[in-house]
Amino acid sequence: MNGADVRALLERLARGEATVEQAEAQLRASPPYTDLGFATVDHHRSLRQGHPEIVYGPGKTPEQIAAIASEIEARAGRVLCTRIDQQQADAVRAAVSGADHDLIGQTVAQLPAPEFAEGLAIVSAGTADQRVAREAATTCRYLGHEPDEIHDVGVAGIHRLLRYQERLQRARVLIVVAGMEGALASVVAGLVGAPVIALPTSIGYGTGMGGIAALLSMLNSCAANVTCVNIDNGVGAAVSACLINALAGPPTR
Amino acid sequence: MNGADVRALLERLARGEATVEQAEAQLRASPPYTDLGFATVDHHRSLRQGHPEIVYGPGKTPEQIAAIASEIEARAGRVLCTRIDQQQADAVRAAVSGADHDLIGQTVAQLPAPEFAEGLAIVSAGTADQRVAREAATTCRYLGHEPDEIHDVGVAGIHRLLRYQERLQRARVLIVVAGMEGALASVVAGLVGAPVIALPTSIGYGTGMGGIAALLSMLNSCAANVTCVNIDNGVGAAVSACLINALAGPPTR
Amino acid sequence: MNGADVRALLERLARGEATVEQAEAQLRASPPYTDLGFATVDHHRSLRQGHPEIVYGPGKTPEQIAAIASEIEARAGRVLCTRIDQQQADAVRAAVSGADHDLIGQTVAQLPAPEFAEGLAIVSAGTADQRVAREAATTCRYLGHEPDEIHDVGVAGIHRLLRYQERLQRARVLIVVAGMEGALASVVAGLVGAPVIALPTSIGYGTGMGGIAALLSMLNSCAANVTCVNIDNGVGAAVSACLINALAGPPTR
Amino acid sequence: MNGADVRALLERLARGEATVEQAEAQLRASPPYTDLGFATVDHHRSLRQGHPEIVYGPGKTPEQIAAIASEIEARAGRVLCTRIDQQQADAVRAAVSGADHDLIGQTVAQLPAPEFAEGLAIVSAGTADQRVAREAATTCRYLGHEPDEIHDVGVAGIHRLLRYQERLQRARVLIVVAGMEGALASVVAGLVGAPVIALPTSIGYGTGMGGIAALLSMLNSCAANVTCVNIDNGVGAAVSACLINALAGPPTR
Amino acid sequence: MNGADVRALLERLARGEATVEQAEAQLRASPPYTDLGFATVDHHRSLRQGHPEIVYGPGKTPEQIAAIASEIEARAGRVLCTRIDQQQADAVRAAVSGADHDLIGQTVAQLPAPEFAEGLAIVSAGTADQRVAREAATTCRYLGHEPDEIHDVGVAGIHRLLRYQERLQRARVLIVVAGMEGALASVVAGLVGAPVIALPTSIGYGTGMGGIAALLSMLNSCAANVTCVNIDNGVGAAVSACLINALAGPPTR
Amino acid sequence: MNGADVRALLERLARGEATVEQAEAQLRASPPYTDLGFATVDHHRSLRQGHPEIVYGPGKTPEQIAAIASEIEARAGRVLCTRIDQQQADAVRAAVSGADHDLIGQTVAQLPAPEFAEGLAIVSAGTADQRVAREAATTCRYLGHEPDEIHDVGVAGIHRLLRYQERLQRARVLIVVAGMEGALASVVAGLVGAPVIALPTSIGYGTGMGGIAALLSMLNSCAANVTCVNIDNGVGAAVSACLINALAGPPTR
Amino acid sequence: MNGADVRALLERLARGEATVEQAEAQLRASPPYTDLGFATVDHHRSLRQGHPEIVYGPGKTPEQIAAIASEIEARAGRVLCTRIDQQQADAVRAAVSGADHDLIGQTVAQLPAPEFAEGLAIVSAGTADQRVAREAATTCRYLGHEPDEIHDVGVAGIHRLLRYQERLQRARVLIVVAGMEGALASVVAGLVGAPVIALPTSIGYGTGMGGIAALLSMLNSCAANVTCVNIDNGVGAAVSACLINALAGPPTR
Amino acid sequence: MNGADVRALLERLARGEATVEQAEAQLRASPPYTDLGFATVDHHRSLRQGHPEIVYGPGKTPEQIAAIASEIEARAGRVLCTRIDQQQADAVRAAVSGADHDLIGQTVAQLPAPEFAEGLAIVSAGTADQRVAREAATTCRYLGHEPDEIHDVGVAGIHRLLRYQERLQRARVLIVVAGMEGALASVVAGLVGAPVIALPTSIGYGTGMGGIAALLSMLNSCAANVTCVNIDNGVGAAVSACLINALAGPPTR
Repeated sequence: MNGADVRALLERLARGEATVEQAEAQLRASPPYTDLGFATVDHHRSLRQGHPEIVYGPGKTPEQIAAIASEIEARAGRVLCTRIDQQQADAVRAAVSGADHDLIGQTVAQLPAPEFAEGLAIVSAGTADQRVAREAATTCRYLGHEPDEIHDVGVAGIHRLLRYQERLQRARVLIVVAGMEGALASVVAGLVGAPVIALPTSIGYGTGMGGIAALLSMLNSCAANVTCVNIDNGVGAAVSACLINALAGPPTR
Repeated sequence: MNGADVRALLERLARGEATVEQAEAQLRASPPYTDLGFATVDHHRSLRQGHPEIVYGPGKTPEQIAAIASEIEARAGRVLCTRIDQQQADAVRAAVSGADHDLIGQTVAQLPAPEFAEGLAIVSAGTADQRVAREAATTCRYLGHEPDEIHDVGVAGIHRLLRYQERLQRARVLIVVAGMEGALASVVAGLVGAPVIALPTSIGYGTGMGGIAALLSMLNSCAANVTCVNIDNGVGAAVSACLINALAGPPTR
Repeated sequence: MNGADVRALLERLARGEATVEQAEAQLRASPPYTDLGFATVDHHRSLRQGHPEIVYGPGKTPEQIAAIASEIEARAGRVLCTRIDQQQADAVRAAVSGADHDLIGQTVAQLPAPEFAEGLAIVSAGTADQRVAREAATTCRYLGHEPDEIHDVGVAGIHRLLRYQERLQRARVLIVVAGMEGALASVVAGLVGAPVIALPTSIGYGTGMGGIAALLSMLNSCAANVTCVNIDNGVGAAVSACLINALAGPPTR
Repeated sequence: MNGADVRALLERLARGEATVEQAEAQLRASPPYTDLGFATVDHHRSLRQGHPEIVYGPGKTPEQIAAIASEIEARAGRVLCTRIDQQQADAVRAAVSGADHDLIGQTVAQLPAPEFAEGLAIVSAGTADQRVAREAATTCRYLGHEPDEIHDVGVAGIHRLLRYQERLQRARVLIVVAGMEGALASVVAGLVGAPVIALPTSIGYGTGMGGIAALLSMLNSCAANVTCVNIDNGVGAAVSACLINALAGPPTR
Repeated sequence: MNGADVRALLERLARGEATVEQAEAQLRASPPYTDLGFATVDHHRSLRQGHPEIVYGPGKTPEQIAAIASEIEARAGRVLCTRIDQQQADAVRAAVSGADHDLIGQTVAQLPAPEFAEGLAIVSAGTADQRVAREAATTCRYLGHEPDEIHDVGVAGIHRLLRYQERLQRARVLIVVAGMEGALASVVAGLVGAPVIALPTSIGYGTGMGGIAALLSMLNSCAANVTCVNIDNGVGAAVSACLINALAGPPTR
Repeated sequence: MNGADVRALLERLARGEATVEQAEAQLRASPPYTDLGFATVDHHRSLRQGHPEIVYGPGKTPEQIAAIASEIEARAGRVLCTRIDQQQADAVRAAVSGADHDLIGQTVAQLPAPEFAEGLAIVSAGTADQRVAREAATTCRYLGHEPDEIHDVGVAGIHRLLRYQERLQRARVLIVVAGMEGALASVVAGLVGAPVIALPTSIGYGTGMGGIAALLSMLNSCAANVTCVNIDNGVGAAVSACLINALAGPPTR
Repeated sequence: MNGADVRALLERLARGEATVEQAEAQLRASPPYTDLGFATVDHHRSLRQGHPEIVYGPGKTPEQIAAIASEIEARAGRVLCTRIDQQQADAVRAAVSGADHDLIGQTVAQLPAPEFAEGLAIVSAGTADQRVAREAATTCRYLGHEPDEIHDVGVAGIHRLLRYQERLQRARVLIVVAGMEGALASVVAGLVGAPVIALPTSIGYGTGMGGIAALLSMLNSCAANVTCVNIDNGVGAAVSACLINALAGPPTR
Repeated sequence: MNGADVRALLERLARGEATVEQAEAQLRASPPYTDLGFATVDHHRSLRQGHPEIVYGPGKTPEQIAAIASEIEARAGRVLCTRIDQQQADAVRAAVSGADHDLIGQTVAQLPAPEFAEGLAIVSAGTADQRVAREAATTCRYLGHEPDEIHDVGVAGIHRLLRYQERLQRARVLIVVAGMEGALASVVAGLVGAPVIALPTSIGYGTGMGGIAALLSMLNSCAANVTCVNIDNGVGAAVSACLINALAGPPTR
């Protein structure tokens, strides 16, 4: 029930068309939550944020994750599970229909036909950043956006990146995925006039400190059009990028 | 010279309308940079990113900052200086015409009439976050966007925030400014379906560690529609927010 | 022997009713410790702090933990073991009678009938925080307090939390369990007038840094009625909460 | 307006005793906030948490802080300002009547007669911790509780502390103030059966890291009845301690 | 060859009793090192520091560690290996005669009869600190000192510690072993007039950060007679303690 | 295509010997990259930096790493893979001819005859630093430089190091490998007049923090001729050292 | 009153030579503390640890520090104040007789004739470490030990240090003072067979992090005879060193 | 006296041309150090490392620094003082002849004519990095190398940098100076085949953490030809770069 519904209810109450008890009951009767015992699935988030819940795998048993996935599919028509292992993937795929398992990206997803075929680019630095880049790409597709993917263009070979300048400049929003020193975000952001979402990965060793070096590099970018998400947070980068891309006008499908 | 210019030059060269030497000279003759001796002002950034340079005050002498501001005004028509002290502000205001000095926000700016009157909201947690919130707001105005400002709505009094739910939900993009525990970003992000740019401030003490606590809170938000900028980086938050808001269609002025 | 006992002993000594040797012997004869070779069990803590020892599992062999549990049961009538694995749990359950093993909460406990049926609430943010929330809840029950449990009310869906406002406000003391950005503690603390014990969990990744982000968020809460315990320290949160709840008057059983 | 008020309003609306417009107006007419332009004073917090706002000095001009203090005194009858310098103190004392300035504790306060004369103890380790200990003590008095103060009992001379064992054990709740290694909290907590609020101070140098060493020591206490607040957060420790002490029954005045 | 040897050599050269070539050869001919291919065993350290090499297990194969142990036994008469696992222990025990394997302390040692029967005490806080305490104790014995061991006397039950006050005060040097908050070092140091070597352990969780909290506590001790070693460095604490204890006079055997 | 090629192309275009379309095609037709689907191999780096790609093992499947190795061998004549495990090593050795697997250094390499037989020294502190020292040595050999290796000369026995003073002073560039306190870099740098590349290793425990202590020691060296690479980065140290050694004149083979 | 006094009192009580009241009074009548209002001076520490209190200047007013110094002089015959500024020094020198002010070491001290003329050496790395080295030296003298001082022997010029090898080896205990990379402690410890107390200083910049780099280097020393104190803690290093040197036998005066 | 001198002395001793006493005297008679009381100036470093001492200003009085500068000038013919303030500069310039004071670079230097006119480039990212870049440049000149300076070419405008590609590729060694995200080092290193010395600056704010972010970025560079120095360490970068440039052959003057 949104604000308009509440005012309508108040007016019916005022006109004697509803009793106080009925009003109270009505509010209680439409809970926007399904209680699974171990988790409360928030179906209204789909309305509020334009997409159903995305299920985060770690710490859930195969049974729990399958039950949650099944419940979401029933209400929202599709489901995406991230950072899941083989056992979790098998359980989910047995519970919902037609879901694809991406071993490298560690996702199981029911992907719709793309609504937005353009505008969102994903750029990544190295082969090792692939897991996170794919989690982001799959999440974009799950949310109806087809990303333009440009991989393996780390800054130590800047000419590799410059070959793609035109495609970069066509994007309305970009996700830049990089571990190690994370410099790619600043360089890409300097080449485009669009907002850049920097997605640090935990790739590296020693003083890379599990992605902290890349994140700090991105937060301190000398380019002003960069914002960051948490290390390895492909889902967060994708959700924000899709919200931004959707702002740019009607679907291009 | 952009890609089209280069191709045109190539074609004139091919048709014998230009010599190799002329082509080389032409490329050299139109440098998109003005060299001030102590700084190279990048005039093309204005074209590439839709706005002129913003001048960062710390570490520059009043004379340097005034010279840079004057140069930018001459080419771009307006200028914004941030984090400047009284002496720097005086020097800049003597060098350019009609610039306002905001003591609290520590900016000197020549503000245009707003092009985008709607869509961008700035929400801040406490009185102490004012300096950063104002830097962000002034930067938005400098870039042609009029922000809807909602202040002093920290999460310890959640009902203060909920009063503004409707205004929050009208925004196409939000900047959330908070120091201390930075929780406001997560709460606001949960209330809206728009992208949220979290702007941590250095307000706090002890384990606040100059904004690190707020930043970590924002990077680890349980809401997926949050991206972050560096601590106290009002300019960065504003630039990204304006780029996003501008995507949403023609100016609303 | 407390202060009164000591004075009584002094007086008997003064009146010639006891010799110096007897006085010395008496002090030595009632050692408040049982020496198990590898551990000294402190039986007087039960008197001093109103509860028997709680046994922390990690680093103890199944045999050691079973022996300690048995010793405590013999003197104190009940025992609680925390963070124990299946092997430890089996050993303890073979050594003491009628103990329950909570797989998720990783506890084995002999739970008494509740002495305090009201006043203490446990609120948690997400499914993943369950292990710690259950450790806290079981510890409360072990200490004679029945907690009111409210789960899965993370701040990204603030309305889920607000549904429980009344139950929150009925509590005399609350434990708030949250990982990731830990913002729930500040929001709950702003809704109630009771002391809130913030219990950060190690849930999260990247910059969550094993619970440090949540802890910093809680330590920097803009609400003044929040105190914190160590990351994942369900026992500590429960002990303090029960001591506080017990202050509020006679048991409500 | 609390829940009961809202239901009453609903019923009057239902009975035709109020119109929708009147209901809406009434909700708007009693805003629990006073807007001072630069700050929103939350008067209802006094009801919700049993005390008026406490004003935090840093970052506020003498004029701002005096205006806020004056506003709070007008509505709540008394005011407390913390971490204020001489200039701020002078401005506040000129704006409100009968306020005391504690130079060492850096507070200006209008202190009521104590409602709770017993139950709350403040224990501090060294002379250098005095500023924070006094901030905590003054806040307790402001909230109506008279603390039992025990100072200069650092653990390197454990017998100094043990002299006070009886007073420590009489307390229903204790605040333990310590910088450097912060060990006092664990030792005191082991001597009493009451909840201990550990208040780390920034006293120390080198690896003390502005109180981090003391805080870590307190968070990792081997005693289970310890909770912590932020470094130097005398107000937070006092608010929580007073809430706990008030639970223990009717005022003892 | 020490300084006296070198001068003697010079004098023989001056008297024509040795040629330049002989002198050079002699210097080269008595290398105080045995080269095992993968390690250079420093036999002179035994002379210089009063004890043979102690072999650190991690990162060495069973074969390597057995060869090193054997070489040391051959030259120095006894050997100590620390932090070794079962496989390494088996290899060492097969290679040298009469060595004991302490599973908990993770050492294999050939222990001499004690030369110094008094003066060195080892005090530890909890059962979990046992591994490190035993590594320290075995190292002391290996170096000829019989430690007075006092265990399980954590500060949360200060009276357990005070029972041992007399034994503590008899020591000429003390090693205090503690994890978690590490407060025991400060308390013990306050009770004695002897130098205290604080040995932090990695016991704890969350903000204990693998012993950092304990170490910081110890480095910031308010007692002046405390020095520290690295986390879990039982060997270092023992070596320094034995050097100090040996200063106090002739062996007491 | 380098700058000369581009000018030549421009001139042919100007003389009508090439069309615009041909020029564009030519640029596109010689991509300096081979696309393997999962990785873009940069063949020009060999020209640009004087050596072929070095393959970093972690995160690559045996199949991926074998395919990359094979591709590099085909184009560059030799290949080096670092930090590879047994399975990866087997796959690579099956794919390329005559490659050696160094178990301790964790490399597979096709080593050419040395071009530079002198000038580069590698000095390491302890047995445990061997893995990293060997990775550096093998990389040097792969790049055509034969290092002078001096091992096990940690600063706690400074005379072991001083024996090698002459060899140290003969080097034109030195790599100093050390974990723990990393002091060896400063001492060696003080003994020589050549540039020293400090290579910290993750050897150590507790406050060694995986090499951070060694790195900090090296970055803060009181000797001015020290530069550092990332922890355990044997490849980086070797590449820089070989570039420097090659500057010193023609190969010495 | 020590243990013997207490037993004597018990016996007099038992023999009727004292009443319970007298016994209680006697215990109270000899408090080992002088209460100055703002500080409790612990006179018995002098007995317990062989030296009077040392007064730490920061955070004390000139009046407070003068009063404390005066009180200590009255009872203990001499006083030492550390880290004091000019104003504090003037106040102390006016209050006590014959005290010297060391501007560089920032101490005011009444120094006795040395009791121990040998055995304790202080070695420092650079000119910048002078303040801390002098604080340590003055503290040693205050405690009756005359240190052998060796300065400006940083490891980047190892031969400067080796000139002093004999003096180093004569010491029974050494304090090694170093900032920056702190390597001097390891090198000195390798040259001697005596216990080394490493005293890191805050000298350095950038990653020196106020002495953390030096401290980590010292804690991770590859020499086993090193223990550490807090950064810049000259007093702590001196107190421990003097306790150790005093163990070595009767005063050498 | 170098190794050859020592052997010569030995031979004269062997031939009876010198007595043992004379040999000892000779060694003592030529100490390579001048003792100024507060500092030992190491004149042989000039021989060993090809340059005289460089004087670091902080923590020295104007008098001390002038005396040291004068002493060095007398022996080495020139002197360089870094990080000095106006007062120190005035004192030095009064003490030595013809020294230039660079206010921005904070140096006073007596600069020789350049010996090496080519090969060394200094590249910096922004105006704010100027102080450090100039310290590096002046140090290079002091050591006889004339650097090719390229400033204000931060990565957010990559085309600014690419204009200088040819000059970059001509260098035999490069110093790359950058604060904030430090990405310039990786990009430059990818463009050249020469060794790159990355020099992080403390420019930035918030998570820049005084240069830590830039340093981490540089240490984690995806380019293999990068080594790093401490934050703001212009001297260290210059010394290493000059040593490397000098390797490349005879001076080019």
